[in-house]
Amino acid sequence: MDYKTVEVKEDIIRRNDSTADLLRAELKKKNIFFINLMASPGSGKTTLLLHLLPILKKKYRIAVMEADIDSEVDAITISKQLDIKTLQIHTGGACHLTAQMVEDALKDFDLSDIDLLILENIGNLVCPAEFDTGANMNLVLLSIPEGDDKPLKYPLMFEVASMVVATKYDTREVFDFDVEKFHQNVRKRNKDAEIFETASIEGYGIEDVAKALDKRISNYLN
Amino acid sequence: MDYKTVEVKEDIIRRNDSTADLLRAELKKKNIFFINLMASPGSGKTTLLLHLLPILKKKYRIAVMEADIDSEVDAITISKQLDIKTLQIHTGGACHLTAQMVEDALKDFDLSDIDLLILENIGNLVCPAEFDTGANMNLVLLSIPEGDDKPLKYPLMFEVASMVVATKYDTREVFDFDVEKFHQNVRKRNKDAEIFETASIEGYGIEDVAKALDKRISNYLN
Repeated sequence: MDYKTVEVKEDIIRRNDSTADLLRAELKKKNIFFINLMASPGSGKTTLLLHLLPILKKKYRIAVMEADIDSEVDAITISKQLDIKTLQIHTGGACHLTAQMVEDALKDFDLSDIDLLILENIGNLVCPAEFDTGANMNLVLLSIPEGDDKPLKYPLMFEVASMVVATKYDTREVFDFDVEKFHQNVRKRNKDAEIFETASIEGYGIEDVAKALDKRISNYLN
Repeated sequence: MDYKTVEVKEDIIRRNDSTADLLRAELKKKNIFFINLMASPGSGKTTLLLHLLPILKKKYRIAVMEADIDSEVDAITISKQLDIKTLQIHTGGACHLTAQMVEDALKDFDLSDIDLLILENIGNLVCPAEFDTGANMNLVLLSIPEGDDKPLKYPLMFEVASMVVATKYDTREVFDFDVEKFHQNVRKRNKDAEIFETASIEGYGIEDVAKALDKRISNYLN
């Protein structure tokens, strides 16, 4: 049996799309590139940022928004370990960020000295994919322990991704992760997304992701 | 900054709670125990079932509902590998099961020869926790690779759990998972939940989980 999502949701999503477009235009005026980082709980979003941002920081002025349901764990980690502006957003139980929530959060932020804005979304492979946050790209992680079949089971997340990064790549043998099948499964959902593999412990693949992001950011900024 | 969930949602949840209570009463009349299995994507829900059900099958007549957004991967696995009645529920993009969805799904099911009903919910550590499915207990998994801090970051899921099982326990050293801290973090959210560790590959801990479930099931059934 199949269930259809309720129609009231379509209205909410339509309204969100307009807000997202306005936010994107506003950030464009300010010459800011905005990345929306999404993945399952514990897939390594914060860890990837801890390895990526020191590289991107050499060229760009960065701010990070940490969305969380109820804790400050990630914001503390990022601001402690990197000298980067960080804002904690609490969703009060909500499972995703809307464009409106991002816009409201940004009111507390001085954006005048920022080139690159990153949102670490709620750990969730379903709901955040439905809501355009106003970002210029969606960076989606899948950790190796989650399995190579996840693009089949969480289709929308992989459809909306501009870039897919398989994290914890050093554990692929422990979890019998088939890298080729993973690429095929991503391709079933998305013809264009760039696909990378990283292992933060060894630093494997991090430079490649940084380069690919740098290309997108520098193409966009004046 | 903090966000409050919208009030319309509270209405939906209140209505869902009534439906869940009715469903629970109906299943009680039929002498069926109902388990709601929840966890992140790729945390090992299906794999745990593949190891648990052969033990529970010796004593109980079991049916499994596999909720998925769009694929049949898990239902095929369960019905192929175990001789157990399986029903695939597609949520059409929705991130959780409601009691109404369970009730509708059960209309396609002959429940006359069933003692134990198991729902494998959508892989999601946020939304499914908000919706009472009509189950007698929530079985929540956390895979070791996700990290020992997850009860802090996804509080509601651990609050509603009757039993918490840490899966992929054989990889605890690879991921620097602190078992004691994990127990402490679960306890911050939940004073009563039973806590277990399992490793499906070695069969570690599976018998203990089966015994604890058996105790709950046999206490409930006539």
